Amino acid sequence: MIYADNAATTKLNNKAFKAMKPYFLEEYGNPSQPYSFSRTTKKALKESREIIASCIGASPEEIFFTSGGTESDNWVIKGNVIGNKEKKPVITSAIEHHAILRPCKVISDMGCPVTYMTPTEFGEITPEVLRKHITNLSQLVSIMFVNNEIGTIQPIKELCEITHSHGGLFHTDAVQAVGHININVRDLGVDFLSASAHKFNGPRGVGFLYISNCAYIAPFMHGGLQESGLRAGTENVALIVGMATALKENIDCLEENRQFINDLEKEFFDVLDSSGVVYYRNGVNQMPGIISLSFPSQNGEAILHRLDLKGICISTGSACDSQNTETSHVLKAIHLNNDLAEGTIRISFGCNNTKDEARIVAKELIKVVK
Amino acid sequence: MIYADNAATTKLNNKAFKAMKPYFLEEYGNPSQPYSFSRTTKKALKESREIIASCIGASPEEIFFTSGGTESDNWVIKGNVIGNKEKKPVITSAIEHHAILRPCKVISDMGCPVTYMTPTEFGEITPEVLRKHITNLSQLVSIMFVNNEIGTIQPIKELCEITHSHGGLFHTDAVQAVGHININVRDLGVDFLSASAHKFNGPRGVGFLYISNCAYIAPFMHGGLQESGLRAGTENVALIVGMATALKENIDCLEENRQFINDLEKEFFDVLDSSGVVYYRNGVNQMPGIISLSFPSQNGEAILHRLDLKGICISTGSACDSQNTETSHVLKAIHLNNDLAEGTIRISFGCNNTKDEARIVAKELIKVVK
Repeated sequence: MIYADNAATTKLNNKAFKAMKPYFLEEYGNPSQPYSFSRTTKKALKESREIIASCIGASPEEIFFTSGGTESDNWVIKGNVIGNKEKKPVITSAIEHHAILRPCKVISDMGCPVTYMTPTEFGEITPEVLRKHITNLSQLVSIMFVNNEIGTIQPIKELCEITHSHGGLFHTDAVQAVGHININVRDLGVDFLSASAHKFNGPRGVGFLYISNCAYIAPFMHGGLQESGLRAGTENVALIVGMATALKENIDCLEENRQFINDLEKEFFDVLDSSGVVYYRNGVNQMPGIISLSFPSQNGEAILHRLDLKGICISTGSACDSQNTETSHVLKAIHLNNDLAEGTIRISFGCNNTKDEARIVAKELIKVVK
Repeated sequence: MIYADNAATTKLNNKAFKAMKPYFLEEYGNPSQPYSFSRTTKKALKESREIIASCIGASPEEIFFTSGGTESDNWVIKGNVIGNKEKKPVITSAIEHHAILRPCKVISDMGCPVTYMTPTEFGEITPEVLRKHITNLSQLVSIMFVNNEIGTIQPIKELCEITHSHGGLFHTDAVQAVGHININVRDLGVDFLSASAHKFNGPRGVGFLYISNCAYIAPFMHGGLQESGLRAGTENVALIVGMATALKENIDCLEENRQFINDLEKEFFDVLDSSGVVYYRNGVNQMPGIISLSFPSQNGEAILHRLDLKGICISTGSACDSQNTETSHVLKAIHLNNDLAEGTIRISFGCNNTKDEARIVAKELIKVVK
């Protein structure tokens, strides 16, 4: 099997699994308990927080563990609004993940004005478009770091500066970016940043939300006083340790990985381009590995199934759930015509792929669409 | 070490770990993807849902996976209120877990009336007290199945019938009960039931919410269309499989486990009673294994630390977080006097304990309080 759907989920890093194991089997002390048996889990939690913080240039007390990217995104959008009597406007984009768009619908139904900015045809949210929409009343701007469907990297630092100059808070859903591209929250200036472990070879069911020391947000999950009272629930130590280990592994090899995945892309496109097949690559300034291709007069789903028969896993449209069979909201927002939108697939390479695999994917794809 | 804090968290069942392992290492296909590689994870998800449903007498489509008990509780309390323009009253009790009480504070701040019923001095929420407070306007009644501090089992079936006769919905936080006592949701008639895997020898970071086919609730976590569109987020297959395996293991031996833990309790009390030490056991009709003891003119925290020096893990007050050092709200609600409340500890035995351990805990406890 060739797994080329790394934007949907990734294979767990072996070192991360090894790091998790003792916390499943022997070290089960509840880290909130004061007895000696819980010292190891308490220490593991502290160290994991430090590792993660250092990977994104944050302080440990700015890292809050969640159940994943969806929770982190829900927390930011709802936490900034629910409970606030004053419903100040929120600005986001039309190409965000549903974990942002659907919470925005919830707060909008509650009376909070939400603006959905339109991207360029390449899926960029430009500083100009934000300047057009932002006012000094805006409470929160939420723009994803890397689009999960077309890979476009957004100018987060600039967008963040514009937001701050109007007194607003800035969030980035960095689920597709963390562990893959260099991120320093201080340098970017973001107030909130969402991440999900299983997108960077960590386990599923765990993620984090970076909350800047300078920002405030109401809790989303209320109960026990874990996570400085901001996120209740017995800490999932094993998965947190797995997440920290996987992230550090990726960050330690960030430049090599980037180069390697660029090489995979080159192999893939060399084969594809030499075939004469007509295709369009969506997005611009894409994150290495995320390749959204549109083929005229083809059907993305059919391509997926025919590649599946060859043992190749790829995706059509957004990969986070297959229940949604409508045309992707991202492809609509970049005004891709219906014919091309229908013939769109996403191939996403990761560090576990080989150059041979990249070539095979291209060759089999050519057979299918020719 | 003797671990006698099973109400805080439990040791993961070995069979559950073995069942989880392939989903960490080899079977990482995102169950929402349509290709063949995801068939195994899709099947595992389906089977886990069926196993869990059968363990509590539910239908599989009534089981919704969450990140744990805290999320399940937050979902029920907030999902029934947030987004509803009409803020109909909610009734709960003063001895619920903070994962219920703190969300109740949130909805109360949003204008939803919340009534906190007072328990008897044994921690019972009687049908009489519910009848006194409930009206035909009441939207939701939420009463925990087993109190986590004093072990009192509530008359859930009766409370549920009263609620239904007034047209309300009934939720039970069964985090301390599932996997330990026989539960049949059809027989009880509950509309919602919360559970947490790590309380029944499953992994941390996963739980479920039972939502009756006859009940409706708004989603809490919005995003992808996983869990029939009611709970977004990439499914945490490994932990879900672990939860199902652990629950089935416990349910298959429910009667033997109950008998065994009753025997442990008997051993413990035989030793304690023969010592002449003065103590009060809190609660009534307690779940086997949860033992809340109050010693006059003693300090619970000091007892905990002195037992810790002997390698024994027990708890003072509520065990879910140690940040909260105030007198337990449960002990206050049952009107335990300050002296006794301060001298209260919780010992919680589980299937992994031995009779020898039960005797040792009693003997060391006697030395400490005598």
